[in-house]
Amino acid sequence: MSGEVQKGLEGVVVAESQLSFIDGDEGRLIYRGHDIETLAAEASYEEVLYLLWHGSLPTADQLSEFTATMAEERAVDDEVLSVLADLAAVDESPMAALRTAVSMLSASDPEPDADPEDGAARLRQGRRITAKIPTILAAYQRLRDGEEPLSPREGLSHAANFLYMLTGEEPDEVAEETLDMALILHADHGLNASTFTSMVIASTLADTYSAIAGGVGALSGPLHGGANQDVMETLIEVDSSEKGSVEWVKDALEQGRKIPGFGHRVYNVKDPRAVILEEKSRDLGDASGERKWYDHANEIEEYLVEEQNFAEKGLAPNVDFYSGTVYYQLGIPVDMFTPIFAMSRVGGWVAHVLEQLEDNRIMRPRAKYTGAKEADWVPLGER
Amino acid sequence: MSGEVQKGLEGVVVAESQLSFIDGDEGRLIYRGHDIETLAAEASYEEVLYLLWHGSLPTADQLSEFTATMAEERAVDDEVLSVLADLAAVDESPMAALRTAVSMLSASDPEPDADPEDGAARLRQGRRITAKIPTILAAYQRLRDGEEPLSPREGLSHAANFLYMLTGEEPDEVAEETLDMALILHADHGLNASTFTSMVIASTLADTYSAIAGGVGALSGPLHGGANQDVMETLIEVDSSEKGSVEWVKDALEQGRKIPGFGHRVYNVKDPRAVILEEKSRDLGDASGERKWYDHANEIEEYLVEEQNFAEKGLAPNVDFYSGTVYYQLGIPVDMFTPIFAMSRVGGWVAHVLEQLEDNRIMRPRAKYTGAKEADWVPLGER
Repeated sequence: MSGEVQKGLEGVVVAESQLSFIDGDEGRLIYRGHDIETLAAEASYEEVLYLLWHGSLPTADQLSEFTATMAEERAVDDEVLSVLADLAAVDESPMAALRTAVSMLSASDPEPDADPEDGAARLRQGRRITAKIPTILAAYQRLRDGEEPLSPREGLSHAANFLYMLTGEEPDEVAEETLDMALILHADHGLNASTFTSMVIASTLADTYSAIAGGVGALSGPLHGGANQDVMETLIEVDSSEKGSVEWVKDALEQGRKIPGFGHRVYNVKDPRAVILEEKSRDLGDASGERKWYDHANEIEEYLVEEQNFAEKGLAPNVDFYSGTVYYQLGIPVDMFTPIFAMSRVGGWVAHVLEQLEDNRIMRPRAKYTGAKEADWVPLGER
Repeated sequence: MSGEVQKGLEGVVVAESQLSFIDGDEGRLIYRGHDIETLAAEASYEEVLYLLWHGSLPTADQLSEFTATMAEERAVDDEVLSVLADLAAVDESPMAALRTAVSMLSASDPEPDADPEDGAARLRQGRRITAKIPTILAAYQRLRDGEEPLSPREGLSHAANFLYMLTGEEPDEVAEETLDMALILHADHGLNASTFTSMVIASTLADTYSAIAGGVGALSGPLHGGANQDVMETLIEVDSSEKGSVEWVKDALEQGRKIPGFGHRVYNVKDPRAVILEEKSRDLGDASGERKWYDHANEIEEYLVEEQNFAEKGLAPNVDFYSGTVYYQLGIPVDMFTPIFAMSRVGGWVAHVLEQLEDNRIMRPRAKYTGAKEADWVPLGER
């Protein structure tokens, strides 16, 4: 127990992985060798799930079967919907509601006695959870709005069906493609805290529901999944202030405020996902004729990079800086941004659980004990 | 990203801690300087919770206030009981039911807007969860048995009230003291996988419900909390076989079976908790006149240590080897053993969450990427 304390496990390598690779100096992100730019432009989220979980891109038949199976698995039990209604009635946060609902799903798993080391059964469990998360989230949003949840609609993609269940209307092509792309961009990103949580839980051979509910819990933290919501709330504050974006951010920095959406432990340059989302945000603004959300964000970025030397400080926009403006322009409520992150990242959680179990060893680090080695026992009456 | 892969994080020091210290060569375990033997003999579980959470032993007044507050916090909402009834109806495992119920508790937290870095608010959240876990578990067991859950009874200790809510009768002194002691022995044990899970989740500043639900999930894994149940199921198999214990274990080893309850990553000698539980198991057997569970376990231990050189191999009985026989003799169902472990270990989970937040850094390790660095995109139609 003599080693140096590895705070936050920074730089500590805990596993081998074939899933995603981040080059933080070049601003490059790949999933199993495929650049994120190509996947965002060419693939569907379902195709990316298949790539992550099965190891290679699907053939047309494989993708069609995979997509159909996931679509069949979208529905959730009435018991889950009933709990979501109770939680909506007391205004529980969507991430907490999702955590509870994912945990409940194990009760209806059709293979409760599967061997925890059976990778194929694990993959099926993970697929069921992934298929059901949009249903849970859309139902929760509708229940909060006093509306009845909608059943999944056949023939729609993962992204389109979520938007349909959320709004009651099938989305147009731009909205579907935009959400699908956002899901691809967020699907995996190395051993971030929520993914690592899922791996630690799975390392005890606990079931996939435990691992994913843990991932949802970790992602709910403001230092992790909450950042995209913080960015949007900041931009709304900028928009409603009487100052311009640049004046607002100057004042904010003078007051010692931290600007959310900048900097990332593994990137020294601009996050490649931010580059793609920035472009999408601008396109959505141009299409609607209302570009202010993109403009606010972009003006703040330019000011911080050009006038405040953020680039030299290694602070560049991360994925959260533009994702919020994209979701907001799709009409998605701000406190659903982190849940949408979960709806995507579950793909990575499942993939890393599968990898962990291929060569498992229970995660059991050490602490450096800095407390008393001896303490006298004083009976209660004499204290 | 060049470092060696630290599988299972063995030997990696991830935090400083003043909570518990394990000397694996001497077979010593202390909480904040107090030997586990002294705490087991002299303290109550409530006193140990206070020690872990507040840093020192309570005065009589402090303990009395702490105990009263916890007793007031025992009741759970009807919504939680209703979900437990649904889960019991489909025979969900008790650990999964506990995970879901803990997750649901956040909806009734009286301080939903507390600052996640406010340690005092965190301690109160943790105390509420700890107070409610026995209520959840006892209710679940009664619901599975087709009986109505009982409300907590005033004036009873944490341990006694659990046994009352479980059975409908106030326990005798031996049963109360035995469970209380078992809760003390399991309350903390360094950075085991479930405790570490709670810390990783808390490191994102996620709420205490997320951290504890994650801990429950991790503990549910057969490589972690499930071992005490495995031991008891093994002893029941031994008892119902026609062979004696020694013949049974000889045959089991010849068949390549692993004997559960032996060996631990951090102990090279007999776990000090096993020493205490062994004695308690024998005493319970002597008192009831039915010593066979202790005898089976003890005969197996003697054979493995003396004839199979388990000691030289660093394989000694761990805490799980005798705890099952203790719970079994108290009349507790075998699949409630791991939940009772959770009911105790929540004290450690909360304590380590509090410590993590005192000097927090988000847990974000790395993976060594072993996949393809480049992959060609082949359009779907051409695959």
